[in-house]
Amino acid sequence: MVNSGLEGIVAATTALSQVDGERGELVIAGYRVDQLAAHATFEETTWLLWNGELPAGSELAAFRRSLAGMRALPEATLAVLRECAGREVDAMDALRIGAGTLALVTDDAAGLVARMPTIVACYRRLQQGREPIGPRADLGHAENFLYMLEGEVPDGERVRALETYLNTVVDHGLNASTFTARVITSTGSDLGSAVVGALGALKGPLHGGAPGPALDMVFEIGEASRAEAVLRQKIEAGERLMGFGHRVYKVRDPRADVLATAAERLFTRAADMSLYTLARSVEAEALRLLEIYKPGRRLQTNVEFYTALLLHGLRFDVPLFTPTFAISRVSGWIAHALEQRRVGRIIRPQSEYVGPRDRQWVPVSERPPAALLD
Amino acid sequence: MVNSGLEGIVAATTALSQVDGERGELVIAGYRVDQLAAHATFEETTWLLWNGELPAGSELAAFRRSLAGMRALPEATLAVLRECAGREVDAMDALRIGAGTLALVTDDAAGLVARMPTIVACYRRLQQGREPIGPRADLGHAENFLYMLEGEVPDGERVRALETYLNTVVDHGLNASTFTARVITSTGSDLGSAVVGALGALKGPLHGGAPGPALDMVFEIGEASRAEAVLRQKIEAGERLMGFGHRVYKVRDPRADVLATAAERLFTRAADMSLYTLARSVEAEALRLLEIYKPGRRLQTNVEFYTALLLHGLRFDVPLFTPTFAISRVSGWIAHALEQRRVGRIIRPQSEYVGPRDRQWVPVSERPPAALLD
Repeated sequence: MVNSGLEGIVAATTALSQVDGERGELVIAGYRVDQLAAHATFEETTWLLWNGELPAGSELAAFRRSLAGMRALPEATLAVLRECAGREVDAMDALRIGAGTLALVTDDAAGLVARMPTIVACYRRLQQGREPIGPRADLGHAENFLYMLEGEVPDGERVRALETYLNTVVDHGLNASTFTARVITSTGSDLGSAVVGALGALKGPLHGGAPGPALDMVFEIGEASRAEAVLRQKIEAGERLMGFGHRVYKVRDPRADVLATAAERLFTRAADMSLYTLARSVEAEALRLLEIYKPGRRLQTNVEFYTALLLHGLRFDVPLFTPTFAISRVSGWIAHALEQRRVGRIIRPQSEYVGPRDRQWVPVSERPPAALLD
Repeated sequence: MVNSGLEGIVAATTALSQVDGERGELVIAGYRVDQLAAHATFEETTWLLWNGELPAGSELAAFRRSLAGMRALPEATLAVLRECAGREVDAMDALRIGAGTLALVTDDAAGLVARMPTIVACYRRLQQGREPIGPRADLGHAENFLYMLEGEVPDGERVRALETYLNTVVDHGLNASTFTARVITSTGSDLGSAVVGALGALKGPLHGGAPGPALDMVFEIGEASRAEAVLRQKIEAGERLMGFGHRVYKVRDPRADVLATAAERLFTRAADMSLYTLARSVEAEALRLLEIYKPGRRLQTNVEFYTALLLHGLRFDVPLFTPTFAISRVSGWIAHALEQRRVGRIIRPQSEYVGPRDRQWVPVSERPPAALLD
C-alpha cells in the first residue's frame, strides 16, 4: 500500500485553482485561465488569489503602491548575489539564496512577491557582468521587472505579454513546489520558509518548470523542412520531445493556447514571425509523429513549449526562464500557504520500514575491514 | 476523500528508521535507538544512515577527516550571519539563511553536515555579542561543535552526552521536515535545496522540534513540592503540558529513556542532581495527573522533555535547542533524500477544488467599490 508519488491522493481542498486534465481546463479562483491571463495585471491576479475576489479600484491602487514600495533589496542580499555571480552559481540557486535572506527584512506575503523580480533581474545583470538597476516605484510589477533587466521602460506590448505569462502560470493545483510550500506551512512555519522550500522544489528538472530545452529543440531544427527528420531521429533514439506530454493533461494544456496567442501577438508586433512560424510547424509535426510512434499515449503540447517561445520573444535568454516562472508562482505558493494555515494541521504521512532488524552494536575495532574494490 | 494531514498514507519505503508508536520502539538502520545512541559517534551514525552499514575503521577515519576538512564557512556566509545578528533574526531563520548560502561552495552531503554546527555555533556567539570561533579539524564532529561554542576543548562526558543526543534524534520516519526533503528531492533537485526546505519545516511549532517550553515548565515549577499544584492549574486551564504526548507514540517515546539516562549520567558527573531530580518528580506527577484528567488519551513523556534537560545540562540555552536538533537531523534528511533519488518519481498529490466557478472578467473600472469596514 505504498504510494511513493502520492498519485490520486487528495491532500488538500483549495479555492485557488482547478486543473482538469481530461477536459484540458484550468480555472484560477473561478476564472478560466484564458480569460484571466489576457486581461489582468499580475497585481490583480495576486490579489485575487490571496483574497478570493478581484480588487476594487481603491484596493488595487493601494496594493500596487504597497508592492512598489517594497521592491528594494537589503544590502546584504545584494552582496550575497554578487558573491554568487562571482562563483557562477546557477540562477535558481542564487534566487533561492537571495530569497532566503529576505528574512533579514520583513518577509511577509507582499514583501516576498515584491522582491522576487528584483533578485532575478539583479542576478541576471550580475551574471552578464553588468551593474544591477534599482527598481522604480512608478512602474507596475511586470513593467518594472523588464525595466530592471534592461534599464528602459518597456513598451506596452511587451508588458502585456509578460503579464499574460505571469498570470498563466501563477497557480496549478498541488504541483510539487506548491505541495512543498503547504507541507512547510503545515508545521506552523513562516511564509519565507515556505517560499524558499518551494523554490528548491521548482528547480528540479522533473517539476516541469524548465522550458529551456523546448526552445533548444526548435533552434536545433532551424527550419520547418527539417522538422520531420530531426523529430523522427529523436523519437527513434528514445529521446523525450521537450515541450510535449504532461502528467496531468491528457489533452492540450490550456495554458499552451493562452501563451501561443500571446506569442503570436508579440511576434506580429515585432514584425518578425519567422521563429513563431517555425515553432508552429515543429509543434504540428511533433504531434503528428507522436500519434504515429506513441499511439494512445496522448502526448500533447504542454506549457513549456509556448513559454519558451513567448519568453524568447520578450528577449529573455534561457537562464531567465525558470526564475521568471518563480516570479509568478510565488503568488500561488503564498496563496496556498495562507490556505494551509487555515487548515491548522500538520502534514505527516508514514513510511514503511524495509531495512534490517535486530542488529547488534559492534565497536569499530571489532568490525571487519572495508571491502576491497571489486 | 480529502486527507489533509496524509495520516495513515504510506508515502515511502525506507531502510533508515522504523517508528513503532504502539510498542514504543525506534529502530535506526537495524539498531535499536538505545543501543546505537549510547555507543556511536555522530560520524558513525551518519555513515550508517548513508551507507546502510557501520563504517569499517579505515572508512570511519577517512569520513572523519573529510567532514573535519569542510567545516569552515565561506566569508559571504559569515557576513550574512553577522547581518542577521545585527537585525536580531531568529536563530532558526539565521540557520536557514546561512545553510542556503552553502550553494556558494559545494553543498554535497558531507559538506552540508560538516558546516551546520559551524553556522549554529557562529550565530550563537554573534547573538551573544562575541566573536565566532573557527572550527578545529583535529576534533570530532560533536566535540568541535562544543569547542566552537565555548572556545575550550570539552571534557569527554559532555561530548558523549552530545553524541548520544545527536544519535537519538537523527531520524524518525516521515516527519514533516523529512517529508519536505523528500518532496523537494523528488523533483530531481539538489541536496542543498532539500536541506533548506527541511529547515523551514523544522522551524514550525507543530513539528515538535522545540524543546524549550518543556524546560520552562520545569523551571516555573521550581521545586518538587509545587509540581502537583502548578500542573493541576495548567491542566484545568486547558493548557497543554509541554513535553508530554506525541502524534505517533502512544506509549513512552523510546528516545525519552535514552536521553533521561544520558542526562542522569551528565548531571551525576557534574555533581549537581537538583534539576535532574526535580525534572523526574515533575515527570512522575505530570503522568499521574494526565492519567486522572485525560484517561485513555495515553499522553506519555516525549522526546522534548529530556532533550531540554540534557541540552540544559550541556549548558546550552533555549535558542540553541532547535538548531542543535537540526545539526543532527540534517544527516537523516540527506539519507532520505538519497533514498528518494533512487525512487526517481515526483511526489505530486492532488487537490480538490472547492472554489467558485464560471466567473466572468470585469475590468477594474466596472467593479463595485471596496466594501466599507463593518
